[in-house]
Amino acid sequence: MIEIVEHGAVRELRLARPPANALSPELIVALAKAVGAAAEEAEQAPGLSERPPRPERLAALVLSGAPGMFSAGLDVPYLLTRDRGGIRDMWHELYSLMRGLASSPLPLVAAITGHSPAGGAVLALYCDVRVMAAGDFRIGLNEVRVGLPMPPVILAAMRRLVGPRLAERLCVSGALLTAAEAERAGLVDEVVPAEQVVERAVAVAAELAALPRAAMAETRRMARADLVALFESGMHQADTEVEGLLDSWFGDEAQDTMRALVERLAKRRAGGG
Amino acid sequence: MIEIVEHGAVRELRLARPPANALSPELIVALAKAVGAAAEEAEQAPGLSERPPRPERLAALVLSGAPGMFSAGLDVPYLLTRDRGGIRDMWHELYSLMRGLASSPLPLVAAITGHSPAGGAVLALYCDVRVMAAGDFRIGLNEVRVGLPMPPVILAAMRRLVGPRLAERLCVSGALLTAAEAERAGLVDEVVPAEQVVERAVAVAAELAALPRAAMAETRRMARADLVALFESGMHQADTEVEGLLDSWFGDEAQDTMRALVERLAKRRAGGG
Amino acid sequence: MIEIVEHGAVRELRLARPPANALSPELIVALAKAVGAAAEEAEQAPGLSERPPRPERLAALVLSGAPGMFSAGLDVPYLLTRDRGGIRDMWHELYSLMRGLASSPLPLVAAITGHSPAGGAVLALYCDVRVMAAGDFRIGLNEVRVGLPMPPVILAAMRRLVGPRLAERLCVSGALLTAAEAERAGLVDEVVPAEQVVERAVAVAAELAALPRAAMAETRRMARADLVALFESGMHQADTEVEGLLDSWFGDEAQDTMRALVERLAKRRAGGG
Repeated sequence: MIEIVEHGAVRELRLARPPANALSPELIVALAKAVGAAAEEAEQAPGLSERPPRPERLAALVLSGAPGMFSAGLDVPYLLTRDRGGIRDMWHELYSLMRGLASSPLPLVAAITGHSPAGGAVLALYCDVRVMAAGDFRIGLNEVRVGLPMPPVILAAMRRLVGPRLAERLCVSGALLTAAEAERAGLVDEVVPAEQVVERAVAVAAELAALPRAAMAETRRMARADLVALFESGMHQADTEVEGLLDSWFGDEAQDTMRALVERLAKRRAGGG
Repeated sequence: MIEIVEHGAVRELRLARPPANALSPELIVALAKAVGAAAEEAEQAPGLSERPPRPERLAALVLSGAPGMFSAGLDVPYLLTRDRGGIRDMWHELYSLMRGLASSPLPLVAAITGHSPAGGAVLALYCDVRVMAAGDFRIGLNEVRVGLPMPPVILAAMRRLVGPRLAERLCVSGALLTAAEAERAGLVDEVVPAEQVVERAVAVAAELAALPRAAMAETRRMARADLVALFESGMHQADTEVEGLLDSWFGDEAQDTMRALVERLAKRRAGGG
Repeated sequence: MIEIVEHGAVRELRLARPPANALSPELIVALAKAVGAAAEEAEQAPGLSERPPRPERLAALVLSGAPGMFSAGLDVPYLLTRDRGGIRDMWHELYSLMRGLASSPLPLVAAITGHSPAGGAVLALYCDVRVMAAGDFRIGLNEVRVGLPMPPVILAAMRRLVGPRLAERLCVSGALLTAAEAERAGLVDEVVPAEQVVERAVAVAAELAALPRAAMAETRRMARADLVALFESGMHQADTEVEGLLDSWFGDEAQDTMRALVERLAKRRAGGG
């Protein structure tokens, strides 16, 4: 579900779950593991565990998707079949992934190769830098339009990128933005032609990887400490947040809205098939 | 003093105290009551208390003013005739209004129909979205130019919209901005032709009113919790802030500056009459 | 090392340590003293200590540099010759200067007359307003590229100006920006032709000096309280931060990077001489 492409000191983790890179529990876990494994590998003495050793020590990550579709977010059709225990597990895995991205010792650059709604945007929020493909692609936190209130840690990460005013407006209205709008808002950092988005993300990551390692890592640790702190008030808070999300998830409003969404998607596929 | 215009699920509260919608204690109280009454009505079981029931349940508010003049802010000429007890009451009513706007369960869109200095800008700060009329109209927190230090809760609300750097620069210098400058700073969200400002504000409010109700309300509650928290450290803090404002108000600098302002206004009116 | 130029109510403090206004311990102390002395003078009863009394009471400061070079930052070639005690003293003097700029009762406008990397940018961060010379000049916090992690109080001051997203990106990557890029990021407030930068900074300072004094001072005190608070958790925190900086300073990475930098500078000078 995750394809790995090495670019010297930069490793690209490419989401590969067709057709839409929807975030199933399995993809969430696979991505968290790939990020964790990269961190472990980078911290090992270089060369020791590698036969043959890599010419350049792993120092940064790129998170990419498929051309035209970074990630469609949570896999709603599948999740609608799960009970409260299954949805609880999914949210805990997602919190664990967000925490892993926030606290990754390796810089992370998102190569937003296409559409990136809801959970797709969430992955990008927690990276260091976001490079998005120009074109008719949308990004945003549209959870409210699906009937789900914004999880507190995601709202907080959004505020960090775009400030309290725009975070309020964008999250409350569930707006999806074009790449150009997202750049103006600060939700993405750069917009480049779609065919260059991975290349540019790798270049940004390679530049970070080439900096004096200890100074960069320590500065990065401080600059992202507030993001990591969202997850450090103990599992008690995450538990509380997740139970609130579950109450909303299984409420009439969210269930009705999600079912209507899935029906629209099914009809559109049937119509196109 | 408040005209009410219904637009389906959106209620427009139109400030109507000619000639300048200056915020007298009575207007402040009337606006707070109108906002509170709307919230109560929206929370009632739909239809029960309405004969005949409204076709659409009240779900959002627009706050508008007169063409060319949203609100001139505090009614300085009148307030200069009041003693410390009267000014204290006025500030407590204004704090109460700001708290009511911040914690309104209904989304609030400001239709800034014209000039909006000082207290006029304050009303807009506490709304969800600000739509301003293009043209030669000014908005800003020019309290310092009237000899009044910025009340802490207003400075905090301003920081939330434009960030600490611009809040410092704009509040310290008492700058009044054109609509275009205000949009660039983040002090307003949209600028439209003057004759469309109410229509556009109603459209923004109607869009919010049409979202899944519970998800929108919960996300909005979280996104505005920091604004509400400004007023939640108990009345003790408001009391302390207000006594500080009273000391400034009755100091020589503020009294001299406000009297000079009122004389200029009187001369201008006499000259024009 | 500091030239003083009076402009009515505005005093210009001009860094004058050729060739690059590099921040030696002596220049740091001299600037802190000049800022402190201006505050004391402004607070004295006007005229009492002046023979003849100044026509206008001192009310604002401008901090300027040399044409083309505001300040090159810390004097690395000199500092490389100092031991841990010497570098510790230097950092404590720099913290003391930053605290003095943050808490200055007189408004401070930076006239960024040219290049302003690292420590040069730090001086500007702690002013009220930053006016920068247009042209091929660079400003930024490039400490990481010199092998030094960003001191926490400087990262916090940067976040206050440009927000958490850009502070993270700019500090982690050690980017130097053109004046136009710095204005877009919010790192500087205005860009004007190089020959007008001091004049414009004096005009901004004079405008602040002409406002109702008490209202301006109290609003400014509130708006900058978060900046001052960075230094108010007691000397214990500064001590801890400085010891961390010393460990980095004398680590292999920083020493190697700084020595390589000094060699490049020496070769460039030899080549040009």
